[in-house]
Amino acid sequence: MSGTVTPGTIHGVGLGPGDVDLMSLRAHRLLSNARHVAYFRKAGATGRARKTVDGILPDHAVEFAMEYPVTTEIPVSHPDYNAALSGFYAGCAAHLRALAEAGEDVVVLCEGDPFFYGSFMHLYTRLKEDVPVQVVPAITGMSAAWTASGQPITWGDDVLSVLMATLPEDELVRHMAAADALVVMKIGRNIDKVRRALRAAGKYDAAWLVEYASMEGQTVQKLSDAEGHMPPYFSVVLVHGNGRRP
Amino acid sequence: MSGTVTPGTIHGVGLGPGDVDLMSLRAHRLLSNARHVAYFRKAGATGRARKTVDGILPDHAVEFAMEYPVTTEIPVSHPDYNAALSGFYAGCAAHLRALAEAGEDVVVLCEGDPFFYGSFMHLYTRLKEDVPVQVVPAITGMSAAWTASGQPITWGDDVLSVLMATLPEDELVRHMAAADALVVMKIGRNIDKVRRALRAAGKYDAAWLVEYASMEGQTVQKLSDAEGHMPPYFSVVLVHGNGRRP
Repeated sequence: MSGTVTPGTIHGVGLGPGDVDLMSLRAHRLLSNARHVAYFRKAGATGRARKTVDGILPDHAVEFAMEYPVTTEIPVSHPDYNAALSGFYAGCAAHLRALAEAGEDVVVLCEGDPFFYGSFMHLYTRLKEDVPVQVVPAITGMSAAWTASGQPITWGDDVLSVLMATLPEDELVRHMAAADALVVMKIGRNIDKVRRALRAAGKYDAAWLVEYASMEGQTVQKLSDAEGHMPPYFSVVLVHGNGRRP
Repeated sequence: MSGTVTPGTIHGVGLGPGDVDLMSLRAHRLLSNARHVAYFRKAGATGRARKTVDGILPDHAVEFAMEYPVTTEIPVSHPDYNAALSGFYAGCAAHLRALAEAGEDVVVLCEGDPFFYGSFMHLYTRLKEDVPVQVVPAITGMSAAWTASGQPITWGDDVLSVLMATLPEDELVRHMAAADALVVMKIGRNIDKVRRALRAAGKYDAAWLVEYASMEGQTVQKLSDAEGHMPPYFSVVLVHGNGRRP
């Protein structure tokens, strides 16, 4: 590569919760003008991020699908999981770095908000010292979930805690008991643990389950009305705060 | 009013963190076509929400400025504070209800995300049983703050707690010590209490102060580099999580 090339920029673009209408003006403009687009997906699948931007990307955009070598086949606690993902992210970063060094701008599609439990962070930390990287924040999935629930999540001085359902049960209980308002993410097969933890923390009856927030198929129900139901991994459990309200 | 009028809709529209370019497509469209626009502001001030949408609202939009009868003159713990605000919100809601019942749509401007510590919630609860109310979520100020900080706020299974600096110091310490990642809002004159609490929780050196995130005058600095500085009320203190990262 010539030393005179001005490097391109890697844009980590938050797409928001899934409804294109909730995308930011900046995200929409970057997508509409994209020459290179990269996105994560499960091997063999279309990928939700890519699907979200159907009809927005220009026809001539060059696509780079970054296919996870592993998703749920190996437990996240296993050393092989980290090793597999680490090599994968390094390879993706190398490809994006080469594009930027050749002067090309690249838009990386990020579901939700890139810096909030997002996968883009793993590319960001590997690229930011080498080439320009810009991040476009977005509406989080949890915002879409509490909006869909039709109740404000926090009032006054409420303490909100955001918990991953993948945490050990005793930690879930402790954090659930301490906070006024709760958002629990990464539900899926952790749902029974979440139910038990909410019961132990005295908050089960106040909990709501939101699936596909802002998307087709959105559902909102009391968690206690969904006994025996296995929600998708990306559903959200909410407990609303009850703080000061004049 | 005639019983045959189809009621209008009150739209609580999140404007996001302040940068118009980070507004959602839906918010921008509702604003661009607004016939009636309502917004909170301090008496005598232009108000940040109204200023944000300069150049987006149509010229013929009818404006309704809802001026707080009190902001910081009475402590929030004083009964007069609640009484003053309660009457104020009831009056604002009555005006908006009358417009909707007359068939008019109204856009209510909301800084940040309406259901996340927002003022619109006080109108929402007073209106939702009477007339159609729709809420448009938005990018939160805290999202803009962590994006501005150039570091992801949460990784892996990190626990994020959102705390109001108005909380008692011992509660701040307890929650700060328990979480992996922190967002502290409503800073202003509470800054010294926040500093003491972060020190007691062992997190002072990891804390960042973000002012005017995504807006003109944005600053990002280590909190320890801002000794003696009084930040604005709407600045944000962040402690980033350090969870699992392959």
